[in-house]
Amino acid sequence: MVNIAVMGYGTVGSGVVEVLNLNKNVITQRAGDEINVKYVLDLRDFPGDPVQEKIVHDFDVILNDPDIQIVVEVMGGVEPAHTFVKRCLEAGKSVATSNKALVAKHGAELLSIARERDINFLFEASVGGGIPIIRALNSSMTADEIEEITGILNGTTNYMLSKMFYEGADYDEVLKEAQDKGYAERNPEADVEGYDACRKIAILSSLISGQQVDFEDIYTEGITKITKEDMMYAKEMGMTIKLLASSKRRGNHLHAIVSPALLGKDHPLYNVDGVFNAIFVRGNVLGDAMFYGSGAGKLPTASAVVADVVDEAKHLHRNIMTMWKSEKLELLPIRDTQKRFFVRASGDMEARRAEVEECFGKARYVKADGLDGEFGFLTEVMTEGDYMQKAEGFPGILHMIRAEG
Amino acid sequence: MVNIAVMGYGTVGSGVVEVLNLNKNVITQRAGDEINVKYVLDLRDFPGDPVQEKIVHDFDVILNDPDIQIVVEVMGGVEPAHTFVKRCLEAGKSVATSNKALVAKHGAELLSIARERDINFLFEASVGGGIPIIRALNSSMTADEIEEITGILNGTTNYMLSKMFYEGADYDEVLKEAQDKGYAERNPEADVEGYDACRKIAILSSLISGQQVDFEDIYTEGITKITKEDMMYAKEMGMTIKLLASSKRRGNHLHAIVSPALLGKDHPLYNVDGVFNAIFVRGNVLGDAMFYGSGAGKLPTASAVVADVVDEAKHLHRNIMTMWKSEKLELLPIRDTQKRFFVRASGDMEARRAEVEECFGKARYVKADGLDGEFGFLTEVMTEGDYMQKAEGFPGILHMIRAEG
Repeated sequence: MVNIAVMGYGTVGSGVVEVLNLNKNVITQRAGDEINVKYVLDLRDFPGDPVQEKIVHDFDVILNDPDIQIVVEVMGGVEPAHTFVKRCLEAGKSVATSNKALVAKHGAELLSIARERDINFLFEASVGGGIPIIRALNSSMTADEIEEITGILNGTTNYMLSKMFYEGADYDEVLKEAQDKGYAERNPEADVEGYDACRKIAILSSLISGQQVDFEDIYTEGITKITKEDMMYAKEMGMTIKLLASSKRRGNHLHAIVSPALLGKDHPLYNVDGVFNAIFVRGNVLGDAMFYGSGAGKLPTASAVVADVVDEAKHLHRNIMTMWKSEKLELLPIRDTQKRFFVRASGDMEARRAEVEECFGKARYVKADGLDGEFGFLTEVMTEGDYMQKAEGFPGILHMIRAEG
Repeated sequence: MVNIAVMGYGTVGSGVVEVLNLNKNVITQRAGDEINVKYVLDLRDFPGDPVQEKIVHDFDVILNDPDIQIVVEVMGGVEPAHTFVKRCLEAGKSVATSNKALVAKHGAELLSIARERDINFLFEASVGGGIPIIRALNSSMTADEIEEITGILNGTTNYMLSKMFYEGADYDEVLKEAQDKGYAERNPEADVEGYDACRKIAILSSLISGQQVDFEDIYTEGITKITKEDMMYAKEMGMTIKLLASSKRRGNHLHAIVSPALLGKDHPLYNVDGVFNAIFVRGNVLGDAMFYGSGAGKLPTASAVVADVVDEAKHLHRNIMTMWKSEKLELLPIRDTQKRFFVRASGDMEARRAEVEECFGKARYVKADGLDGEFGFLTEVMTEGDYMQKAEGFPGILHMIRAEG
């Protein structure tokens, strides 16, 4: 029997206990041993809950019990999660976590402690919920140099953008609806400003480079400025707008960015709607691959956490190698990235065509029905630095959205 | 240094050598040691080729060299591959293969030999080429009971069906074109009759059940009877036709089938076009997930084989558990599967409506432009057994195609 402790009995924590009970037989078979939840750490009590006898309020009970070989951390936030996880690892207990903030910030350090002690620190659930992207990068795509990884990594904003696209709803409307349905938090900042996606792409960037990518270094723009008018132009062009988190290789360096992006119908992420997540990966020999699934939610996230627990039970005294050194990787500056830019500008399209061309060169022009006194154009590929410079000399820009592909 | 031998220097074999050279640094890092190709087994010589010095014609050279710790089998076919692989494993050498015929037939036996000797038999490339589906089932989705796995597992037929759908081309035309482009073999039977997809879904079914699923037991229907007229009806209904290989759980049993199927626009496999493969998986806690990528081709397949070699180099004397016992799983009979059925019938739609309703119950009727003297209808969900019985009492059926969802 392998004894584990679950730290945090919120949505994911209770999901972990539920999954371990529901699929007990198959999990025991695959882990090679029965997984037993001995403790659940939470500040609250849960009278009447099946775990009520297992609830402890004191972290030291877990830390000091030599029976506990694996600890699940699903409290969220950097502290006290970091202190607890670090002490567990130092005490020789493997840790599985869904905590993206913790992993983005301290992943390299925690992996190195686990490596030294021949135990494991796994975090499949921290990116893409139930999509097994971490293990794919870590143990499946090991023959490849990963050239690009681009994902829809936040279900809340993807739900909102899908609503805006299909129903012509405005931002405030869909935010309120998402909040009412429980898809968005009352304070939605982490989702709508792109902070959540930013931490996730920082983790993926660290894994594909093998070095520390600091999330603070990643240019991050949320969806708060996306309007139903933007969606009208997107539709007119046969495109959609998604919040993309992306990391692309140039030589030994990476460009990373989180921002809304226009996608054409042939982009593999075009059809990813609602609360789903999807991750596109390009390897130098593998070519293009895409992973799609539930990016969040109690059971899909718990499924990923429990899969990590199973892996840790199978590797109790053996480290599963993860390449992620603490040495920091400097990202390439955003001004050097190459893209097309969609610009909404005020004025009459025909009257300003020559002006656009003089400033930005060749472009694709677009008018949206019912939007008078303005027009849009999509530039050819140029660097972000070039675009910025040109945009300064072009009055009346209402909004700019980057375009992929 | 880990010495390996590559058996078979055809498309995949030469791809394996190419990938090992191209990505040498990153592969060494991830394997924790340098991978060196010591021998390449082939009947032919390759004068001027970088491997010419490594070519051997005698399998015993590989078998009897204690330096060889990992053997790559990419010869294809059941024999002599089976004998060679078995002898390698018995001699304590791990094996990585892309050979679906070998794995479908002898997977359970070879896995059990590897387990007894604490070495590994891995076969990621045997299904879905570069899509890491085997490892996903084996080490990522371990917290789930897999309820369904449905895939587009053959790139040749998917290319052909995509052409028929988008260009209105007829079967013979697209087959010839696929052959000219090298996507289809001169003898295309294995692809177009569904035999290739059948072996792949047999492997996946064995992995999700943990028991032996014999490919001979799987009802298999190819695409040779799909016509451009069928595609016209599909379009009219907002659907497409794909060759699906599918395995669905009912209790402790599985239904498995390979056949063309009508898919609606909201099916996750609807948009998978051309030579790409995709695999949809439903877990009881994970929910829906989908994996998409190159299902074949020299480098994507080689990427998957080399990833297995890396894993084997990391686990030289330790078995990576794969649940696949030799005990045979009896599949549920196809007559008990539930589906909707699309029927093309001769005659006038209005005149025969009452007859259709009396025989099949409620249905969705469809006429395709330019197809006179016939019509189509899509039944409600019923068992295949029910359908068969009803169809016997309904004259003038031109074609039946199963529909998903």
